[in-house]
Amino acid sequence: MATRALVDAGPIETDALIVGAGPVGLFQVFELGLQEVRAHVVDSLPFAGGQCVELYADKPIYDIPALPYGTGRELAERLLKQIEPFGAGFHLDQQVTEIARRDDGRFDVATSIGTRFVAKAIVVAGGVGSFMPRRLKVDGLDRHRGTQLFEHDATLHEHAGKRVVIVGGTAAAVAAAIAAGEEGASTAASVMLVHRRDDFDADEATRAKLNGLRASGRVEFIAGQPESVVERNGRLAALVVLGSDGESHELPLDVLFVLLGWSPKLGPIADWGLALEKKQVVVNTASFETSTPGIFAVGDVNTYPGKQKLIVCGFHEATLAAFAIGELVHPERAQPLQYTTTSAKLHKLLGVAQGLP
Amino acid sequence: MATRALVDAGPIETDALIVGAGPVGLFQVFELGLQEVRAHVVDSLPFAGGQCVELYADKPIYDIPALPYGTGRELAERLLKQIEPFGAGFHLDQQVTEIARRDDGRFDVATSIGTRFVAKAIVVAGGVGSFMPRRLKVDGLDRHRGTQLFEHDATLHEHAGKRVVIVGGTAAAVAAAIAAGEEGASTAASVMLVHRRDDFDADEATRAKLNGLRASGRVEFIAGQPESVVERNGRLAALVVLGSDGESHELPLDVLFVLLGWSPKLGPIADWGLALEKKQVVVNTASFETSTPGIFAVGDVNTYPGKQKLIVCGFHEATLAAFAIGELVHPERAQPLQYTTTSAKLHKLLGVAQGLP
Repeated sequence: MATRALVDAGPIETDALIVGAGPVGLFQVFELGLQEVRAHVVDSLPFAGGQCVELYADKPIYDIPALPYGTGRELAERLLKQIEPFGAGFHLDQQVTEIARRDDGRFDVATSIGTRFVAKAIVVAGGVGSFMPRRLKVDGLDRHRGTQLFEHDATLHEHAGKRVVIVGGTAAAVAAAIAAGEEGASTAASVMLVHRRDDFDADEATRAKLNGLRASGRVEFIAGQPESVVERNGRLAALVVLGSDGESHELPLDVLFVLLGWSPKLGPIADWGLALEKKQVVVNTASFETSTPGIFAVGDVNTYPGKQKLIVCGFHEATLAAFAIGELVHPERAQPLQYTTTSAKLHKLLGVAQGLP
Repeated sequence: MATRALVDAGPIETDALIVGAGPVGLFQVFELGLQEVRAHVVDSLPFAGGQCVELYADKPIYDIPALPYGTGRELAERLLKQIEPFGAGFHLDQQVTEIARRDDGRFDVATSIGTRFVAKAIVVAGGVGSFMPRRLKVDGLDRHRGTQLFEHDATLHEHAGKRVVIVGGTAAAVAAAIAAGEEGASTAASVMLVHRRDDFDADEATRAKLNGLRASGRVEFIAGQPESVVERNGRLAALVVLGSDGESHELPLDVLFVLLGWSPKLGPIADWGLALEKKQVVVNTASFETSTPGIFAVGDVNTYPGKQKLIVCGFHEATLAAFAIGELVHPERAQPLQYTTTSAKLHKLLGVAQGLP
């Protein structure tokens, strides 16, 4: 997260910058595309899809209109396919940290890793805020983030053959323990799973698999709470856990995965001067513009009378915001409502011949 | 349309009555179902799906979130599948004609064929109004509606072996001419197609099929405008057409199909005392309730600041209306937002075991 772009090619100029690549942010790309508004998207997670992928990847969603059943991952994949024609730029694994109004009315935007944009409009599609991994509060740990401490399990295979300690009772923690314990690309030298009690957020089959690995000794488990670290030569050497047996256990390690789940944080959005109510961004229901002209908010991050935090509502909000941003970006042109079923202009934007998928 | 129910079993008692079975009316059933609100649905068309089926059955729709491509019929089928768990009653081919507030606060509702309801809430999901077949304005014709004059082609097969005259340049008119001209269950004794010019709303393959039947004499075509009818013994004997050749042509017939397309009419809704603006029903954006408490309006029929006549917006409107109706129907119970992904209660309502389609 601390890496800066090595070559500064100057800021990216765009019509709209979308903050958040969850389902509503993705559909925002689509609706803006129909309005001929080019967009770039920034997200704090390292992949598109937001909560749908991070929290609900394999869990069912039943209330997306005309999708009687689908997993979070499927929903994200369908939306990514739908927005393909519009070629939006994605800037992942970084947070928007600064927004400033320019003299020409546009916005200067910068992210936590130094990506810079100049945008005519900003859409905050930030869900419940930036989804940040829940951190383990143990002195001396933070400085090892990215070298020995990881809060995603995506890098597991890079640590094959090492002594792995995994902290957490989440599905991600269990999956990481299994991947590191089983024969495969991620197999570790040793795997120690730490959680405050012997109870995990996993379905029966997964639990059985974990128990099998524990029975064979390929995964060890200790019930307890991490309390400190041991460092040697500036490297993390061990995690010290206060066991539920009342004893301290020193767990030697090469790499530590902390998989405690995600905590939504409104984060820097709180500092942009937007009117807030109970940490939600206040918008009007005609355009979903915030108290700052040119900045819009859609999805779970906003509030208005009657608001429900549902994806179906965010899709509507993104649609009306797109019409308002279309007028802002193309003030010269009248924009009568056109339908994707019949409009030759929209077919061209979508890259489809009429009547064909 | 003039038939009355033969046996009066008394009015149907329901939590909510939805007026309109288009995509938004169908999704309204779903969202109400999640709120444990039982619903019945009335539509003027003889099938569910509204415009999506009547006008766009085989035409593509690209802007339903997470459905990169689908036809109108597919959209309706997906929604019908999604609402299956809630077993709503459908009352098709009839219009709601009367609504009156009862002393107990509920509504008495009656349709054009005498179906009666007592409902706690009404949702007008009427699209651009009742979709009524465009009528042919020729003196003396109306009294034959339902006996010799038909404005759907659904009854074509009942008229096999008869002399059929079809008026219209629509896809439905062409399809009817082909069905009546080709060998099959609907084959007519003779088929005369009447349209003001030799130009039809049909794709190339369909046009070619029609031309083949015209070449073989199984379908005849005349360019012109119907101007009067000939009746004998109270029956329709012929349609008189002023041809583009300037001559009058008498077309003998047993049955006349007028397939001029559909004309949306706000219809009786205009008389229910709801506040209107430019023939649209005014609603608030917190609950999509109209000026009459207990009557809601969702989809293309309503208006509010920023309104766009898009299905995606109607889905949102139906969702917020469902929350408000849930409170109205179940005033005693608190209704915190629950998610279909995680709520055991919603899984039970949907009839699904968690994690399964």
